Amino acid sequence: MKNTFGNNISLTIFGESHGKSVGCVLDGMPAGIPVDYENIKRLLSLRRPSGAISTARSEEDDFEIHSGVFNGFTTGTPICIIIPNKDTRSSDYENISHLARPSHADYTAHIKYRGYEDPRGGGHFSGRITAALVAAGGIIIPALNKKGIAIGTHIASCAGVNDRGFENYGEDIDSLSSLAFAVLDADKANEMHNGIIKAKESLDSVGGILETAIIGLEAGVGEPWFDTLEGMLSHALFSIPAIKGIEFGAGFDFADMRGSIANDGFYTESGKVYTSTNNSGGINGGISNGMPIVLRCAVRPTPTIAQEQNTIDYVNLENAKLSAKGRHDPCIVHRARIVVDSVCAFVIADALSGKHGTDWLAL
Amino acid sequence: MKNTFGNNISLTIFGESHGKSVGCVLDGMPAGIPVDYENIKRLLSLRRPSGAISTARSEEDDFEIHSGVFNGFTTGTPICIIIPNKDTRSSDYENISHLARPSHADYTAHIKYRGYEDPRGGGHFSGRITAALVAAGGIIIPALNKKGIAIGTHIASCAGVNDRGFENYGEDIDSLSSLAFAVLDADKANEMHNGIIKAKESLDSVGGILETAIIGLEAGVGEPWFDTLEGMLSHALFSIPAIKGIEFGAGFDFADMRGSIANDGFYTESGKVYTSTNNSGGINGGISNGMPIVLRCAVRPTPTIAQEQNTIDYVNLENAKLSAKGRHDPCIVHRARIVVDSVCAFVIADALSGKHGTDWLAL
Amino acid sequence: MKNTFGNNISLTIFGESHGKSVGCVLDGMPAGIPVDYENIKRLLSLRRPSGAISTARSEEDDFEIHSGVFNGFTTGTPICIIIPNKDTRSSDYENISHLARPSHADYTAHIKYRGYEDPRGGGHFSGRITAALVAAGGIIIPALNKKGIAIGTHIASCAGVNDRGFENYGEDIDSLSSLAFAVLDADKANEMHNGIIKAKESLDSVGGILETAIIGLEAGVGEPWFDTLEGMLSHALFSIPAIKGIEFGAGFDFADMRGSIANDGFYTESGKVYTSTNNSGGINGGISNGMPIVLRCAVRPTPTIAQEQNTIDYVNLENAKLSAKGRHDPCIVHRARIVVDSVCAFVIADALSGKHGTDWLAL
Amino acid sequence: MKNTFGNNISLTIFGESHGKSVGCVLDGMPAGIPVDYENIKRLLSLRRPSGAISTARSEEDDFEIHSGVFNGFTTGTPICIIIPNKDTRSSDYENISHLARPSHADYTAHIKYRGYEDPRGGGHFSGRITAALVAAGGIIIPALNKKGIAIGTHIASCAGVNDRGFENYGEDIDSLSSLAFAVLDADKANEMHNGIIKAKESLDSVGGILETAIIGLEAGVGEPWFDTLEGMLSHALFSIPAIKGIEFGAGFDFADMRGSIANDGFYTESGKVYTSTNNSGGINGGISNGMPIVLRCAVRPTPTIAQEQNTIDYVNLENAKLSAKGRHDPCIVHRARIVVDSVCAFVIADALSGKHGTDWLAL
Repeated sequence: MKNTFGNNISLTIFGESHGKSVGCVLDGMPAGIPVDYENIKRLLSLRRPSGAISTARSEEDDFEIHSGVFNGFTTGTPICIIIPNKDTRSSDYENISHLARPSHADYTAHIKYRGYEDPRGGGHFSGRITAALVAAGGIIIPALNKKGIAIGTHIASCAGVNDRGFENYGEDIDSLSSLAFAVLDADKANEMHNGIIKAKESLDSVGGILETAIIGLEAGVGEPWFDTLEGMLSHALFSIPAIKGIEFGAGFDFADMRGSIANDGFYTESGKVYTSTNNSGGINGGISNGMPIVLRCAVRPTPTIAQEQNTIDYVNLENAKLSAKGRHDPCIVHRARIVVDSVCAFVIADALSGKHGTDWLAL
Repeated sequence: MKNTFGNNISLTIFGESHGKSVGCVLDGMPAGIPVDYENIKRLLSLRRPSGAISTARSEEDDFEIHSGVFNGFTTGTPICIIIPNKDTRSSDYENISHLARPSHADYTAHIKYRGYEDPRGGGHFSGRITAALVAAGGIIIPALNKKGIAIGTHIASCAGVNDRGFENYGEDIDSLSSLAFAVLDADKANEMHNGIIKAKESLDSVGGILETAIIGLEAGVGEPWFDTLEGMLSHALFSIPAIKGIEFGAGFDFADMRGSIANDGFYTESGKVYTSTNNSGGINGGISNGMPIVLRCAVRPTPTIAQEQNTIDYVNLENAKLSAKGRHDPCIVHRARIVVDSVCAFVIADALSGKHGTDWLAL
Repeated sequence: MKNTFGNNISLTIFGESHGKSVGCVLDGMPAGIPVDYENIKRLLSLRRPSGAISTARSEEDDFEIHSGVFNGFTTGTPICIIIPNKDTRSSDYENISHLARPSHADYTAHIKYRGYEDPRGGGHFSGRITAALVAAGGIIIPALNKKGIAIGTHIASCAGVNDRGFENYGEDIDSLSSLAFAVLDADKANEMHNGIIKAKESLDSVGGILETAIIGLEAGVGEPWFDTLEGMLSHALFSIPAIKGIEFGAGFDFADMRGSIANDGFYTESGKVYTSTNNSGGINGGISNGMPIVLRCAVRPTPTIAQEQNTIDYVNLENAKLSAKGRHDPCIVHRARIVVDSVCAFVIADALSGKHGTDWLAL
Repeated sequence: MKNTFGNNISLTIFGESHGKSVGCVLDGMPAGIPVDYENIKRLLSLRRPSGAISTARSEEDDFEIHSGVFNGFTTGTPICIIIPNKDTRSSDYENISHLARPSHADYTAHIKYRGYEDPRGGGHFSGRITAALVAAGGIIIPALNKKGIAIGTHIASCAGVNDRGFENYGEDIDSLSSLAFAVLDADKANEMHNGIIKAKESLDSVGGILETAIIGLEAGVGEPWFDTLEGMLSHALFSIPAIKGIEFGAGFDFADMRGSIANDGFYTESGKVYTSTNNSGGINGGISNGMPIVLRCAVRPTPTIAQEQNTIDYVNLENAKLSAKGRHDPCIVHRARIVVDSVCAFVIADALSGKHGTDWLAL
């Protein structure tokens, strides 16, 4: 159903990069969830560009909650969050509006919307829309935390530099929560930074991999067919611009494994059930098994680069050259991380609300 | 919504491995689509186990269409397809019914369904249920073909052996359509076979990668948020047991690319638009760009193996050892391939029916 | 989404009057609900035609449960119920297949399905499909009963004869449960019978009103917008062929009331909340208030009558005369009653599963 | 799915009576639909209270379109419409916030939202939210008009006074479009006014019936089960506060008819198909037959009245007396009329977009 997602909790997003605002309607959250404006601001700040490794566009991301919150708590009715656009410089885009940025959505949007699309800054396809997802995450994540569920994403790889993997999930997730550039091994942050700056200096961009862990999720969540945890998570995550691959647990490494190595043997201790390895990423048959959910998202290099590229003028159907002039990011991997957290939180909260009922998250 | 998927065309699946039958209800297909029983049979035969590299369970997969087809054509009303189970040997499973097969869904099903699950042969989690997806594919695929859309999947990797990639998409897809073991380079089939047999002899199993191409799809199909082509395809594909990763175009290889290499430059020729590379896998901003849709699914090694493994008795919560005795597959990569084709066909048909209206597929 | 309905519990129906079978897939029922075949049979028998006031077509309504039930309990997976068609006499319909029965769906089906519809016995539009709804009801209703919720429908009016209204809801619902011709005032049954027979002798048919009460439903169920209790119930109930009006509580009588009379004053007694009248039919703002849900369905006279009527040949687009020859009902009000009960049970169970979680109904 | 409705076109509504704003997200409208701000304003003015027969609360209903519209046309992306609340006098409600207005949603909201509801002015249950539906209608209705579909609603009955029925549908709908108090027989407007004033003077309120006609809708729209035209329309219409009954065509009058009278005989003329009567209200088997869709909504008297009524303090669970002090309407029938038009337009546009594809409405 297009721009709405979710069964028991649902999220509808709207907005254009250079329109009046971006925002979302978060519906199905139970009444009585505390809404902490400062926390939402904090999460939004983690997505905001900053410094040399990001676009020069700087949005305050002041947000307004128009409905569904009263006296600091959710009321149980739809929560409309509006994030006004302020620092828009549409002039950057005026002279390129008919030139398709390679691997961006300019051309496909033009075909789909038959010329009526808002081309300024990528319009509805802009990464800016993800601010609305993060604002929703700012309400959902603390509610999950109270239920003992924590979510953390680190930059597993960026500009050819690899971070270490998760070791102690709880501590690692904690340590990530306040980082603007989320790596587990602090030394790698510098290396990645350098790689991004180098690419930027070459008028180029870099990609990477985000690795996410969700801990504290009970066993038994997810459906066997279609609404598997993998299916629900990937459906939502692929909305994040630039994500082009998702794998759970060992993922593509399974291809070269044998079952005897790949299988996660169960064992029980003090009445609880564990697996000795977690190649399944915490999901068997589409359903959580109580181990950490682990997934990785492949993030493509930002398509908008200042280098000259071959492209077309899609109105006059002519071959052309394009060197992007707008403000853009040499890397969005680090900015996408809190978006991934937010989307995962949304999907998990939705699944749990289905299992335990609409009010459970607030009880 | 659990076991139903799709917006304009929808598929509801049901059945247990050792129950009366498996099947599906395919709804939303327009009236007037020819239903060719022989073609459905042929596709089902591609999924059926055969020879030393598969389980010894042999189902005829005789199917019955209970509704929605009249005089050889779809009527426009829901199509219920029933595939009776015949060769069930539930006794194989009797003595292991409380031992969780590692990385299988026995334990998660037990938690989710609180002991009421049908444990025989994996119940509703059995790969056998995918026969229903293929039967639906047998109706949908020819309808897409008539519209100039072709879908083909090959075993890109299995047991450590790599097939060549797609070269001439049209010819390659053609050549795959009649193969029971779908590789583009025939020599690799033997190597893969040998690898599978070797694993089987070690009481083990192997995984692999399936690569799919969808050609002939017009530009402009898919939605910007949530119902992106990637999101819809992955949501449905992750239902296929054993798939643990999905990537589009360059996928995880993007991580180490720079934008200048990763971007697919556009060009126009004779009034048509192409990209010189296809790292995006035919999708920009969630929407098809007219180039082939290319995706890869990581398939885990079959979890059920004859080797002894550590596990638990999930009823008595005790540690235990398990050596699977049921008939099982040392590899399901080759059998999963027609399931992937069918699921892709379903998702594409659904998206096109939304764009062009419910009757379009039949016109 | 066409032939599927419901959010947390969903029902997909299929089948044609003279095809292989009619049936449904009931999905989302929690594991552990007892399935009593005898009870399902009993409910189906209440829908079955019998005696002079019904069609002469007699179906045993033997049903088979193909999936989702194991050892007498629901497994939590989709329940496919098949009711084979046996006593089909398609020849009755052969010579009228191009003549649209007035007020039946022959013409609209022909337009919608462009000539591919199955015209035998009304095809997918036949009242026979409602047997599948009742079979599903046979699983859901006892589960609701265990939760203290009872549903009963009586023939409030038929052939111009009015039954008395509900007085003691609990006792009245009890008394209705075993009646094939469900009236609260037994004397009225005879009068209605006579009215139906008289209409039949005039080669005509009669309509009526069904009044339903749902008791034991807690306050707080339903949504403020769109998924109001009234909206959900009416959406599903209007599927029942021949229902052309639905009202809740005072319904259309509100038109001539003043607020001071129409309003249901609240009062509290022993810690519980009641209203002194129930003109709202137990629903305020789309949400149950704890009082009995009361609704009424207007049932049109069976469109198929033996009298000669003006119509068209919809293939040759010519005016024509039609005297229906098939077996048909002079009245379906009494047969529709258990269908209404089943549909109401489904909607209420779905709403409660959303509120309390997927397993609640079984706990 | 709670506050979102629609399959191909969907509407999500949000807002509270005394919050920052009310509004909606209209999604799925094709690109290229002209958006006429003046027309939206005009429709909103038809819903606005005015004069002695309405509440004294006066909202300008200035609206802002935050997304999805560019250069005067829809872009094809979600359209967020915000209608700020300005003239809020929450103090009116301060001293009654624990007293349930009889037949209003105060009590049910309190139970459902466990005390976290926004009680000011009915919160999310306020009729004010319907302004968002009308704003959406202001975009949809002109698009349907261009396709030859017209919708009109008149006050068939109010305060015990009956308007004449539709005669010449086209002319009647035209004549209604500019009326603030929509009756077909102008003389009746005065009588109804007087009735409303009389009720108001008695500190009371009145109800009525709205009758709607939709003309120009092709045959073949709607689904046989669940998503019947009646089901879709009623599902959405029952969201409008105060609507407690919906009937199509002869509706409840069918109860006392015989089939020979009730049936609408078909005839053909100049290659077109008609029925000589329209007791079916233009719908057979859930599908439009090409005749005008005719439906009637029963509107209850406004529950908020100044007379003293019995009620409870729902926080302290004590019996109490209530005389409403807030500004309120002695009648909302006339104001609800444009809401009914808008909701019908939405449902019809959604159904047509499914049938003909997402772009059809703009072509």
